[in-house]
Amino acid sequence: MGGPEIERLIELLSRLPGLGPRSARRAALTLLRQPQTRLLPLADAMQRAGQSVRTCSRCGNLDSRDPCSICTDDHRDGSVICVVEGVGDLWALERAAVHRGLYHVLGGTLSALAGIGPEDLNLRPLLSRLEEGGVREVILALGATVDGATTAHWLADRLQPFGVTVSRVAQGVPMGGALDVLDDGTLAAALMARRAG
Amino acid sequence: MGGPEIERLIELLSRLPGLGPRSARRAALTLLRQPQTRLLPLADAMQRAGQSVRTCSRCGNLDSRDPCSICTDDHRDGSVICVVEGVGDLWALERAAVHRGLYHVLGGTLSALAGIGPEDLNLRPLLSRLEEGGVREVILALGATVDGATTAHWLADRLQPFGVTVSRVAQGVPMGGALDVLDDGTLAAALMARRAG
Repeated sequence: MGGPEIERLIELLSRLPGLGPRSARRAALTLLRQPQTRLLPLADAMQRAGQSVRTCSRCGNLDSRDPCSICTDDHRDGSVICVVEGVGDLWALERAAVHRGLYHVLGGTLSALAGIGPEDLNLRPLLSRLEEGGVREVILALGATVDGATTAHWLADRLQPFGVTVSRVAQGVPMGGALDVLDDGTLAAALMARRAG
Repeated sequence: MGGPEIERLIELLSRLPGLGPRSARRAALTLLRQPQTRLLPLADAMQRAGQSVRTCSRCGNLDSRDPCSICTDDHRDGSVICVVEGVGDLWALERAAVHRGLYHVLGGTLSALAGIGPEDLNLRPLLSRLEEGGVREVILALGATVDGATTAHWLADRLQPFGVTVSRVAQGVPMGGALDVLDDGTLAAALMARRAG
């Protein structure tokens, strides 16, 4: 179908999350129809990103600078570090613009099933930052899953000697969420964490 | 969010059909996490495709060769040409392996609304092929839309002087389709085109 170049392009596109074989073919066709304005600019953007983007040695974020643009931003509050599982979570918090401190990307959660232990997580740089001092609070913004809760518990233990406040993001009813579609676990958590009206 | 390189990558990815902003971010993250094994190979495949793939001057197909690998395939029946609207339709017929003749890609359909007239379609090379002789039948495999039907009608008229058989793909109940979910137009077409038992 159009030679090996087209077939390889479709195959690699179909491995992207969110694209199956059908939509990969459609995407390839869209790109191939406008090589100068769509295909080559995207190839170029990928090349540049691949060459310039690296993992921040301080926080684990992905950026074209190391330390990343968040770690080096003077306007941010260096005394509060928000620990997230992955870079996608960091992006979500940045889009919401709800955290003005720094981040630390753990690179995963502890998982007995997946065989991920403490040594597989990006913990050491976080401890170094706490040893340096100047950190007042560590917010654990991990997912509300069994692995997320386990990791938060273990992390709170590990951070205790540093004498910083360790907090966790609240669980409860999501904004705009109707009660009758929520699962029992969320309902229980929301009820237990109820606040005075 | 990670510098201009990441932002540009996400923006270009989000313009692909089938990807929105959310899935573009997810795709970018997947690629950036594995630059050597995923990001750069895809960039390379795009570069190669962009440099090598061209439009076949005979049939309008996309291929790294001109004439394309279908036009130059000796095992195919050069006396039957199947006219399709776009390369995606050609791919679909090739995947189904139901046509052993050659193709002609029209590059669109006539459309009064979109302002597409006969001069905007890739017609001239088809007429040249018919003038060369050796063609016995032209199958019009256009969509069962108003524009598709209009185009088929117009094309049948234009091809009449060449004395070739002009046929159209059948309309009717799609394979596996239940009657009660079909639209009235399809039901009418299927009933009118009924065959003896």
